[in-house]
Amino acid sequence: MLPFPPRIAALPKTIPFVGPERQERDRGAPFAARLGANENPFGPSPKAIAAMAEAARGVWQYGDPENHDLIDALAAHHGVPPSRISVGEGIDSILGTLVRLFVDDGTPVVSSAGAYPTFLYHVRAVGGRPVLVPYRDDHEDPDALIAAAAETGAPLVYLANPDNPMGTFHDAARVAAMVEALPSTALLVLDEAYGEFAPAGALLPDDFAHPRLIRLRTFSKAYAMAGARVGYALTSGEIASSFDLVRNHFGVNRLAQAGALAALDDAPFLAGVLANVAAAKTRIGEIGAAHGLKALPSATNFVALDTGHDGDFSRALVAALAQEGIFARMPFVAPQDRCIRISAGPEAMLDAFAAALARALARLSTSAGA
Amino acid sequence: MLPFPPRIAALPKTIPFVGPERQERDRGAPFAARLGANENPFGPSPKAIAAMAEAARGVWQYGDPENHDLIDALAAHHGVPPSRISVGEGIDSILGTLVRLFVDDGTPVVSSAGAYPTFLYHVRAVGGRPVLVPYRDDHEDPDALIAAAAETGAPLVYLANPDNPMGTFHDAARVAAMVEALPSTALLVLDEAYGEFAPAGALLPDDFAHPRLIRLRTFSKAYAMAGARVGYALTSGEIASSFDLVRNHFGVNRLAQAGALAALDDAPFLAGVLANVAAAKTRIGEIGAAHGLKALPSATNFVALDTGHDGDFSRALVAALAQEGIFARMPFVAPQDRCIRISAGPEAMLDAFAAALARALARLSTSAGA
Repeated sequence: MLPFPPRIAALPKTIPFVGPERQERDRGAPFAARLGANENPFGPSPKAIAAMAEAARGVWQYGDPENHDLIDALAAHHGVPPSRISVGEGIDSILGTLVRLFVDDGTPVVSSAGAYPTFLYHVRAVGGRPVLVPYRDDHEDPDALIAAAAETGAPLVYLANPDNPMGTFHDAARVAAMVEALPSTALLVLDEAYGEFAPAGALLPDDFAHPRLIRLRTFSKAYAMAGARVGYALTSGEIASSFDLVRNHFGVNRLAQAGALAALDDAPFLAGVLANVAAAKTRIGEIGAAHGLKALPSATNFVALDTGHDGDFSRALVAALAQEGIFARMPFVAPQDRCIRISAGPEAMLDAFAAALARALARLSTSAGA
Repeated sequence: MLPFPPRIAALPKTIPFVGPERQERDRGAPFAARLGANENPFGPSPKAIAAMAEAARGVWQYGDPENHDLIDALAAHHGVPPSRISVGEGIDSILGTLVRLFVDDGTPVVSSAGAYPTFLYHVRAVGGRPVLVPYRDDHEDPDALIAAAAETGAPLVYLANPDNPMGTFHDAARVAAMVEALPSTALLVLDEAYGEFAPAGALLPDDFAHPRLIRLRTFSKAYAMAGARVGYALTSGEIASSFDLVRNHFGVNRLAQAGALAALDDAPFLAGVLANVAAAKTRIGEIGAAHGLKALPSATNFVALDTGHDGDFSRALVAALAQEGIFARMPFVAPQDRCIRISAGPEAMLDAFAAALARALARLSTSAGA
């Protein structure tokens, strides 16, 4: 018997994270298109690739634990003081840091049922008690989130804007109102992982300041560096420095630091990616429409395609797509689970998706008719 | 007022991690030799460098959350089943995972006064209560560690073998006896970060099995990939799978996965590094001896040089070395703090160290005489 505390003994034994590599090993073949994890197959700036390759020889050195140069560049990029920025090993890691700063065994934490699962994974690991409110019309519901925070005294409230997995968003005025309505006992964890894809007016101004707001950004999505593990928090100086009390100081990969710095410096490349993603989303909508699937408007780099059926159908469709060589995922709570979720990617991947979707739907229709 | 729980409000506000980059920024010049963090300036295998550069283009993909290929290779390397291995973002991250699995607010945790500080940093972050036993003759003291664990019921006992910061070691029989003497309520966290440098007979057999033993290994030291952040645990299948309950599943950098796999495959290069490190340690001893500093025998890639004075002198010497362009560190608890700690490095770095040491000692002697 290992001496686990009760909070650990109570954790679900099933791990919610299954990577596409596991599925590829199980099926014995690689996927033709990897469109399930909202990665960005358009790829990173060539400058970022070159910077990482160049930095490889220096990997014998730990990365700078202060992430100084990257934070300075981010501060200039966003027009905020460096003291308001903390860099971590991806948003996932920063979410863990936040949880460890504010959540104890039994602490309530507010999120939406069906929102990004990694946040709640970290909350449960420390024994926190998720308080979940439903989506409203495929959007997270700021009013309900605030009400739940006020009712429970939760120190953390999570909102993704734009939202994952639905791709919807609230405009900046709505988010600002939510920030103003925060109970004095609560911090807003505003996950803006998909922020660069959002339409004008969706994001708060970069220099928007509130003492209990944490905005999370990443190099994983628009900058196409998911495998590098670099994210950052735009927050108050007090919160940013509190991260230093518990974060893993030498945690960021040294090549990733160099790559992120170079990626940030290549605005023309980013603009090209955003244009490519926009075109790909249109195409995904057209592919869906050709088969009776309706695209939800998307403020991200993926499209939620409404199957017009229930979660069982979507699950079967995702499984059938995998058999046809396409890695896709889907929302896991009703009624959002009527949709499947397809990441934007280059033409060839979407061609593969279009062909696979036709075959997968035919397969489901045959099996339903059998 | 931010809603910090008492355990966070009680944390020391001073961060124990100051990187060489911070010192370089403060002094306005780069170090001539970076010999303070037990990095390995002999550098990684060219195959590892090539693998990381090659993987850079694919960084748009998350790394495999199971670290499957690397774990398979490590299992073959050590002759143990893959189920007994868990890979994480460096030993630092794995230490955090272990603490989060077993330590709650108020839980006692046993280590040695002056041992690797990052472990206790993670312990304090969750409110754990460090129970520290003194070194004995510049070695960690297995008997005292076991006695403290038995007395306090601590779930975790930490031992580094070989030891950092002193470079000493216990032989495998002594460590095996310690494992057998573990109270049934305790796990042994056996940090073998420097294991590859240790003499024959220092390490337990690779396939040594005990249900409450966790051996930690890394690519940061012998493999010279500190900036990559890849470490792993050799442990029981039960403990390895329990890591999956709380670890950051997508935390390991994808380039680092590829680099570690390639490094592991280049045994001839590793053998060359080990020979270079051994020669460099001899040279560090000679440089010290020429100035009246006595080298402790080292089972690691660094040498503790006994200054023959107290901690104040060593601190002044480390500061003077920094002014002379050499990044060094030192133990921070008496009487070990009579030493400074110098990492093995190539000839040119040790030449710079030798020259700087002469100037630094002259400077101290002048200032003492003034």
